[in-house]
Amino acid sequence: MALIVQKYGGTSVADGARIGHVADKVCAARRAGHDLLVVVSAMAGETDRLLSLGKNISQRPNPRELDVLLATGEQVSIALLAIALEKRGLSACSFTGGQVCIRTDDAHTKARILAIDEDKLRDTLARGCIPVVAGFQGVDAAGNITTLGRGGSDTTAVALAAALKADECQIYTDVDGVYTTDPRMVPEARRLARITFEEMLELASLGSKVLQIRAVEFAGKYNVPLRVLSTFKEGAGTLITYEDTAVEAAIVSGIAFNRDEAEITLIGVPDVPGTAYRILGPVAAANIVVDMIVQNVARGGRLDFSFTIHRNDYPQTIDIMQANLRHIGAEQVVGNDRVVKISIVGVGMRSHAGVASSVFQALSEEDISIRMVATSEIKISVVVEEKHLELGVRTLHAAFRLHEPPQQDFLQRSAGASRRRGGITG
Amino acid sequence: MALIVQKYGGTSVADGARIGHVADKVCAARRAGHDLLVVVSAMAGETDRLLSLGKNISQRPNPRELDVLLATGEQVSIALLAIALEKRGLSACSFTGGQVCIRTDDAHTKARILAIDEDKLRDTLARGCIPVVAGFQGVDAAGNITTLGRGGSDTTAVALAAALKADECQIYTDVDGVYTTDPRMVPEARRLARITFEEMLELASLGSKVLQIRAVEFAGKYNVPLRVLSTFKEGAGTLITYEDTAVEAAIVSGIAFNRDEAEITLIGVPDVPGTAYRILGPVAAANIVVDMIVQNVARGGRLDFSFTIHRNDYPQTIDIMQANLRHIGAEQVVGNDRVVKISIVGVGMRSHAGVASSVFQALSEEDISIRMVATSEIKISVVVEEKHLELGVRTLHAAFRLHEPPQQDFLQRSAGASRRRGGITG
Repeated sequence: MALIVQKYGGTSVADGARIGHVADKVCAARRAGHDLLVVVSAMAGETDRLLSLGKNISQRPNPRELDVLLATGEQVSIALLAIALEKRGLSACSFTGGQVCIRTDDAHTKARILAIDEDKLRDTLARGCIPVVAGFQGVDAAGNITTLGRGGSDTTAVALAAALKADECQIYTDVDGVYTTDPRMVPEARRLARITFEEMLELASLGSKVLQIRAVEFAGKYNVPLRVLSTFKEGAGTLITYEDTAVEAAIVSGIAFNRDEAEITLIGVPDVPGTAYRILGPVAAANIVVDMIVQNVARGGRLDFSFTIHRNDYPQTIDIMQANLRHIGAEQVVGNDRVVKISIVGVGMRSHAGVASSVFQALSEEDISIRMVATSEIKISVVVEEKHLELGVRTLHAAFRLHEPPQQDFLQRSAGASRRRGGITG
Repeated sequence: MALIVQKYGGTSVADGARIGHVADKVCAARRAGHDLLVVVSAMAGETDRLLSLGKNISQRPNPRELDVLLATGEQVSIALLAIALEKRGLSACSFTGGQVCIRTDDAHTKARILAIDEDKLRDTLARGCIPVVAGFQGVDAAGNITTLGRGGSDTTAVALAAALKADECQIYTDVDGVYTTDPRMVPEARRLARITFEEMLELASLGSKVLQIRAVEFAGKYNVPLRVLSTFKEGAGTLITYEDTAVEAAIVSGIAFNRDEAEITLIGVPDVPGTAYRILGPVAAANIVVDMIVQNVARGGRLDFSFTIHRNDYPQTIDIMQANLRHIGAEQVVGNDRVVKISIVGVGMRSHAGVASSVFQALSEEDISIRMVATSEIKISVVVEEKHLELGVRTLHAAFRLHEPPQQDFLQRSAGASRRRGGITG
C-alpha cells in the first residue's frame, strides 16, 4: 500500500461532471489499496473570473487582497470534490492552505512555501480519510492568505508529497505525458515513459505546458517521484525521476523549441574587461530577459558578441544598443527578429561524444544554416531562421530516432532509480 | 469619534459599481471622523450559485464541505471591498471568519457564535486601518469552517459590535428602515425613527425582510444599538434600541401580517388532560410548525381547539387530524386555508388598556369578522379571512393613526434610552 499524492488541474475539475470523473479516479486508486491525498486547482476559468472582478475595481489591486480573492477559487474546488467523494461513500475532508498550515513567505501573489505542518494530514490519513487540499495557496507567519502564482498547485502537490514522503506525486492534466517533441509539429513524436528531473528542466519549453518548472525543481530537490498523466485518457503517463547512472540512458530524450526569439549581434566590440556588462547592463536595467549569450574568441583585439531576447523586446533592445554603441565601443549592431531556438536534451549526452556534430550534420544535410550555438551539459541549443523551425525539429527528431521506442536501457532505468536521494544541481 | 460597525448585504455588493458605492459610503463615514469596521455578505446570487454547484454534485452535500463552499462567497466580497477602499486611499484589511477567530459551535450550516477574539481587530483599528470582515462564517474549535445560516451576516455584525462595544451597528440593506406596515399595502405607511428590540422581534414578519431575527435577539441581549438604513438612499433609517420607560411610548408601533396561513379547528374535544398533546403531537412529528394555538373554555365537558399552520401544510395536517379523530375523541375537524394573520405591535400596550377593544371595534365597523385572537404582552394577533387582509391592515393603520408622525414622546425616547444595560426577555 503506497501513499500517493494526486493533483488535478483546472480543466480536470471544470464542472460537476468532471469533478465526478475525478472522484471516480480517486475511488479507483483507493480501491486498489492506496492511501491518497488530493490537491486541486480552481475550476478552469475561475481564477481569470476572480482576477477580472478585482481588476474591474482597481487596475492595481492590493496584492494581499488579491490573494484573499484568488484563494476562493481552490476553496470551491476542494469542497466540491470532497462532496463528490463523500457521495461515493469515501471519507474525505477538505483543507484550505491555511488549515494545513502551508506556511509561505509574505510575497503576495508569488509566495514560496517554507514549511508544512503535516500532523493534521497524517491524522486525517490515519483515520482512513482522504485529505483534499487546496493548491496554489498558503498563509504567511501572520496568518495572511498568500498564493504561489500561476500553476502553483503543482508546487503544492510536490511540497505535500515531499513533507509526507509520498511514494509518488501524480499530476493529472489534459495531456497524457511528456513527448519527445510537440506532436502537433512532429506526428511521430512519442510519449516518454520516463525522463530525468534535469531533462525535464531543460525541456522547459515543452514541459511548461505540462508541469510548472518550480514544481519540477522542488520535486528534484526533495526527490519526489513525479508522474504526469491525463485525467481523461488512461495510461501510465511520464515518470519524472532520477537518472540511474548504472545503466545507459537514451542519448537524446526530447527536442524543445522556442518561437518568438530575436537575436542581436554587436560587431567589432573591443576585447577589454567589462564589455559584456556594458552591453547587457542597460538591457537588464530595461527589464528585458536575455536568453542565449555567445561571445566569439577575439581577433585583432575585437570580437563579436551575440545574444537572444524575446521577439517583443526586439525594437527596444535595438534602440538601447544604438544609444550605447559609442559607450560600448562597437563598430555596428545587427539583428534578426525572425529566428527560433531548437534544443536537443538528454542526460546521455554527458557520456556520448559526437552529439553536437550529429546535430550539425543533420541540419546541414537539409541546408539549414545555424546562426548561434550554445551548449550545457545535457543540452545543445541552436538558433536558426524561423522558416527552418519545422524542418529542423523534424530532421533532428528523425536523426536521433526519437520516434522509435527506447531500447532496454529505459526498462533497466525504471527498475533501479526509484528512490535514490540527492540534489539535482551540481 | 465613535466606533461604528457597518454591514452591507448582498444587493449592496452585487457588482463592482455597487462595491465602489459602498466604498464611497465607508470613506464618507471615515472622513466624518469615525472608526469603522465593515462586515459584508456574499454578492447577490453568489450563495445560490455556490449552493447549486454543490447540489449539482450531491443532493445532500456533506454539511462540513457545504460550509467550506459557501464561505467563499463572503471571502470574495471582503477582498473586493478592501481593494476598493485601498484604491480610495484608505487603509483596509480583509479578514475571513477564521482569521479573526469567530468561534462557533460545530453545527455546520447553522452554527452559533460562541466567542470572538477581538485583539486582532482592535490592533487593526488602532493602526487606523479598516477591518473588512466576512459575514456569515466562523470556525469551530477544531478549525473547521462553519456558516451561520441564511442572513447570518447580520448576526456577525452585531456580534462584532458587541465584542468591540461599538457605539452603533448599522445594517445597510435595500430598504430604508422599518415601516409601520408594508408600504406596498398601505401607501401612508411611515418609516419609524425608532423601535424597541421587543417590538422588532414581534414585527418579525415585517422585520424579517429587513433584519435577521437572530441578529435582533443578539443585539437586544448585548444591548447593541442597531440601525437599519438603505445603501442606495440617504436617510437616518430606523434605530432599534431599548425602550425608555421614563416616558410614554407610542401605543402601537406597527402592523405586521402573514399571508399563507391556514386554520384548523377540532370541535367537541373532550376536556381531559393530554388533549392538546394528542392533537399537536402528530403534527410536530410530521415536522409541521404550528403558529397560533387557541383553546376555548370547555362547556359540558367538551371544548373547541384551534391552531394555525402554514398554508402549504394544510392538506397534510387535515389528513393527520382525520386519521387521529377517534384517538383525540373529537366530534369533527374543520378548517380554512384561506385565512391570514394581522398583528398589532407596540410596547405602549403594556400601560394602555383598551387596545384590543379598539382593534375589535375598528374591524367590526368594516364588517370584518375575527376568526381567532391571540395576545402577548405587546402584540395582538387576529386571524381573518384572506379577502379581508388589505382592508383590515389599512383600517387598523388608520385607527391607530400610524400615518401621523409620533408626538414628542418619540423624541424624548431618543434622548434617554441609548445605552442602558439589561436583557430583553422577562
